[in-house]
Amino acid sequence: MFSCWLSRLYWALSKPTGRTKPLIWGFLSRSLVLSSQRRIPELSSFVARTNTCGELRSSHLGQEVTLCGWIQYRRQNIFLILRDFNGLVQVVIPQDESAASVKKILCEAPVESVVQVSGIVISRPPGQENPKMPTGEIEIKVKTAKLLNSCKKLPFEIKDFVKKTEALRLQYRYLDLRSSQMQYNLRLRSQMVMKMREYLCNLHGFVDVETPTLFKRTPGGAKEFVIPSREPGKFYSLPQSPQQFKQLLMVGGLDRYFQVARCYRDEGSRPDRQPEFTQIDIEMSFVDQTGIQSLIEGLVQYSWPNDKDPVVVPFPSMTFAEALASYGTDKPDTRFGMKIVDISDVFRNTEVRFLQDALSKPQGTVKAICIPEGAKYLKRKDIESIRKSAADRFKQEVLPVFLKASRKWNSPVAKLIMEEQGLRLIRLLEVQEEDVVLLTAGEHEKACSSLGMLRLECADLLEAEGVVLRDPALFSFLWVVDFPLFLPKEENPKELESAHHPFTAPHPSDVRLLYTEPQKVRSQHYDLVLNGSEIGGGSIRIHDAELQRYILATILKEDVDLLSHLLQALDCGAPPHGGIALGLDRLMCLITGAPSIRDVIAFPKSFRGHDLMSNAPDSIPPEELKPYHIQVSWPTDPEAEKSSLNHPCHPES
Amino acid sequence: MFSCWLSRLYWALSKPTGRTKPLIWGFLSRSLVLSSQRRIPELSSFVARTNTCGELRSSHLGQEVTLCGWIQYRRQNIFLILRDFNGLVQVVIPQDESAASVKKILCEAPVESVVQVSGIVISRPPGQENPKMPTGEIEIKVKTAKLLNSCKKLPFEIKDFVKKTEALRLQYRYLDLRSSQMQYNLRLRSQMVMKMREYLCNLHGFVDVETPTLFKRTPGGAKEFVIPSREPGKFYSLPQSPQQFKQLLMVGGLDRYFQVARCYRDEGSRPDRQPEFTQIDIEMSFVDQTGIQSLIEGLVQYSWPNDKDPVVVPFPSMTFAEALASYGTDKPDTRFGMKIVDISDVFRNTEVRFLQDALSKPQGTVKAICIPEGAKYLKRKDIESIRKSAADRFKQEVLPVFLKASRKWNSPVAKLIMEEQGLRLIRLLEVQEEDVVLLTAGEHEKACSSLGMLRLECADLLEAEGVVLRDPALFSFLWVVDFPLFLPKEENPKELESAHHPFTAPHPSDVRLLYTEPQKVRSQHYDLVLNGSEIGGGSIRIHDAELQRYILATILKEDVDLLSHLLQALDCGAPPHGGIALGLDRLMCLITGAPSIRDVIAFPKSFRGHDLMSNAPDSIPPEELKPYHIQVSWPTDPEAEKSSLNHPCHPES
Repeated sequence: MFSCWLSRLYWALSKPTGRTKPLIWGFLSRSLVLSSQRRIPELSSFVARTNTCGELRSSHLGQEVTLCGWIQYRRQNIFLILRDFNGLVQVVIPQDESAASVKKILCEAPVESVVQVSGIVISRPPGQENPKMPTGEIEIKVKTAKLLNSCKKLPFEIKDFVKKTEALRLQYRYLDLRSSQMQYNLRLRSQMVMKMREYLCNLHGFVDVETPTLFKRTPGGAKEFVIPSREPGKFYSLPQSPQQFKQLLMVGGLDRYFQVARCYRDEGSRPDRQPEFTQIDIEMSFVDQTGIQSLIEGLVQYSWPNDKDPVVVPFPSMTFAEALASYGTDKPDTRFGMKIVDISDVFRNTEVRFLQDALSKPQGTVKAICIPEGAKYLKRKDIESIRKSAADRFKQEVLPVFLKASRKWNSPVAKLIMEEQGLRLIRLLEVQEEDVVLLTAGEHEKACSSLGMLRLECADLLEAEGVVLRDPALFSFLWVVDFPLFLPKEENPKELESAHHPFTAPHPSDVRLLYTEPQKVRSQHYDLVLNGSEIGGGSIRIHDAELQRYILATILKEDVDLLSHLLQALDCGAPPHGGIALGLDRLMCLITGAPSIRDVIAFPKSFRGHDLMSNAPDSIPPEELKPYHIQVSWPTDPEAEKSSLNHPCHPES
Repeated sequence: MFSCWLSRLYWALSKPTGRTKPLIWGFLSRSLVLSSQRRIPELSSFVARTNTCGELRSSHLGQEVTLCGWIQYRRQNIFLILRDFNGLVQVVIPQDESAASVKKILCEAPVESVVQVSGIVISRPPGQENPKMPTGEIEIKVKTAKLLNSCKKLPFEIKDFVKKTEALRLQYRYLDLRSSQMQYNLRLRSQMVMKMREYLCNLHGFVDVETPTLFKRTPGGAKEFVIPSREPGKFYSLPQSPQQFKQLLMVGGLDRYFQVARCYRDEGSRPDRQPEFTQIDIEMSFVDQTGIQSLIEGLVQYSWPNDKDPVVVPFPSMTFAEALASYGTDKPDTRFGMKIVDISDVFRNTEVRFLQDALSKPQGTVKAICIPEGAKYLKRKDIESIRKSAADRFKQEVLPVFLKASRKWNSPVAKLIMEEQGLRLIRLLEVQEEDVVLLTAGEHEKACSSLGMLRLECADLLEAEGVVLRDPALFSFLWVVDFPLFLPKEENPKELESAHHPFTAPHPSDVRLLYTEPQKVRSQHYDLVLNGSEIGGGSIRIHDAELQRYILATILKEDVDLLSHLLQALDCGAPPHGGIALGLDRLMCLITGAPSIRDVIAFPKSFRGHDLMSNAPDSIPPEELKPYHIQVSWPTDPEAEKSSLNHPCHPES
């Protein structure tokens, strides 16, 4: 593990301006601390060291220092590299007889043992400086050394560790946390959240209020964990968000609320979701959509890491309808083009059967995207896999057309595209030599969604070939607005359900439609999208009890009694209010470029929801369930269930 | 509610320097914001107002302002008092014909309706200024008004509300939150926590790390809520503290961790405990007891509210043995004297039988406290109730002695105290005229504990008579140190259990006793006590795996397998480390002088653990329990159980 870790470290050292790759210890501390426009934290207050390993420079020459850290490695029993969270420093092991005991300690302690050394900061001999190491100009001439804890055993051969599965990293998380990447991720997370708090609390008067997590099941809260109480048959549940509480705080006159809130969602096994996650939860009174958006733009700008390019505000905004039409999704990745173009008009008189069929239907459209240099980089099997994706996920036929490229394997159907149509396509889609056009037909939403998915698939394929489409240093924020307020229920499309949640206010222009054509009502919901991921969502809420009751009872046909406390609160002088929640884990994942949200969480669960280190969840003796008046209903076929269980000796991945 | 609230407000206004009573809106914002050495927050950014109601002064004269707030009350349809979180302001209702619509809105909206008004800040006519109101020099000449939400009904007559039970306050918490006291408590809490974060994160380089709350049951964790998972028979549990995680973070090299951590404890019904509570959780590597203590002293000093007298550091320190001997408790209230004095030597030759008996035993002692002016203020029934308390709770006989007072009803036994003994007592206890001495005898700990309890009882009795013993403006911090590491188990005194938790390190001077007389080993645990309440506790932890294993397996006889991950971590190069946790709810309760921790929590549970607003915990349909493989074990005598259930129509109190 640590030799590889070291090579990563040196690699990073040699690229101090690299943005998306693991950063070095020295750079870490500088970028997070020195340039944050605050007083530099005292990192050695209250403890047994005078300095951190990583901070020593030529300016410390001659100083007597005491350091505490881990033995990173030794060179020929002459040099020892000592590590702490702040970096590495070279310690010279004394060779003279009088220091035999110091030498013994420093030479005999296994790697990763914890030692305290005191000595003098001296210059390295000329020619021995290491410019790749932030402390590379100096070394420590040791006077005393103390073994604080010996590393008795590491659970696996160190060299093999970085090749280990994520499951093994999670099982020995306390070792994984020593890596520079995890240190960087967790420290950056802490500092960004701190800056968000400063912005909200100190600059804008928000009040940090803690809301309960032992709550009551919300209507339709099928994804809420339940917690048995000591009263028979009565359960708390862990809420998916503090939604009700933050609205009640507005009714209570708190005016501006925020919370870094722990939320819970039981979705079973999902690769990149966590059963508990964190959101920056915000609510304000007397605010409109623009107000919330400005607040959040300021928040992101204020808390943005100093080692990234500054964020430009305001963020662009797009309606849900535009996002769907141009990107086939409600969370467009606007770092690159390849937008969807409606080419229905081109094909009004086509001879291509499936286009004809599509256009003859009332909502029929023909859509296309142009993949730059697709003809050059996409192989036949890529095109086949693209067509298969569209067929499998959307039952959509997709036609690749090489309008200018001289490809032999152009599809026979494509040949039916007449010259004039081809020219119009080239103009509409701005087709270049070597581009390929993907063309599909059908109902607007389905056609767009398929092309939206293919757009991302093609981007992956092109990037696998070395084309840079999505600059990893680019952070493209986008507001998506004007969502529909309701959606047809999947299981019964004649009934409506909330597109987001039932407290979302309708768009002011659409209120009258509520009573006639509710399916056409747009909402005052807004999503914040970053690089194609939804990192936040919120809305202006309903503050009128009558309207809320009408939507709950008449449109959504929910049991109004379950929310009687909220309806009653709205009747007691509720101010107009709105808010937003930002998904902190996903935001940090995107900013650090981590492959998974598990890399920005100190102790994440596996994708099956297990803590692989402690082996949670675990069995509980029946007598400990008694006070809660519950018993386990063992499945009738225990063998079948057993296969779904996880053992630490069979780690997941 | 609001008329009483207003009278409280005016009462507070007339005593702007009062420390322990509800503070006024204007004073609130000034004390929390202006003097906190930070930039003043912009309280009206992003919203539909230009100013808050409470901030307007003569310096705003002539400005056109827009305000949003609640109608506090009206005077003769000429004046309207508008309220927001920041205070009250007088609005002049226009009387001329041309403003009829504005007049209509402002005169017809019920009290507690939400309105937006725009107008000009003008001087009140000479003689009409209200010096008791921070905005009392000005009023608003309204131009436009808008009814934002009408208050349709309040759930009870407003005037009656403040007389309502706490249960009713909790049921309509969103109304209760509008009170100046709740606003003050929640805003002060937010600001103190923010200052703590600044101190830890910005000044001392601590990293805010979120640790999981879905965890594994800890050994002996009988008070942990359980959460069924989707795997049959497997449960998460909600931990009582992040203890294991914070230690693992130290093993992971995080160096300095803190978290404002949500913790859970299922203790059933307890009057002043909450099933979920918050602690300021801290852990550091390479630190000793002194380091943690200095850190916390700095933390309290830095975050201390500006409207209180500054905190003096360092805090005094006392060993557990001293605390027990002098105060009869491990959390002495050092705001007043009445210390316990050992007077065994005085009575070596006594004729009083129960003292003779006590002193003849090996651990026998005689102890006393002197109650200043007790003879003046304590009635015969008080003395009787004191003696009864000692008998009921400790089976201790207590003898009241009036050494200098000429009381008729002195006990006959007391007359046996010879003159010479009396004089020695007067000297030892510094007895004054009118004092009363309470005397008891027996084993040291029991005698001290009884007198410790009586000391507090007597303080209550004296204060009920108007004697000021515990100045409410005084905050007496105290460290209690050198606790025993183990205590005999209550159910089996031959076995030992941890006095705090099994990760606490032994006192360095006592390590050798671990293997011979473990019951004599002192620990490196420390408690922080404020005014007789424990507000924090922590320790230096064991970082040696062998020692930890010995204590767990050999001394405590715990199942070591349940903690194998922690033991393994200690073997992988764990640094020496220690930490502390401060109980935020209790700290805020003491600082605000609130009668209960429920007054410093936005949405607390009742003492039975219910959310009276939403009626949680609640029933869940059996089919929603199926995914969790549990079923309710209904008690065989449902009638008996029913009486323990709580209905919103039968509120608790």
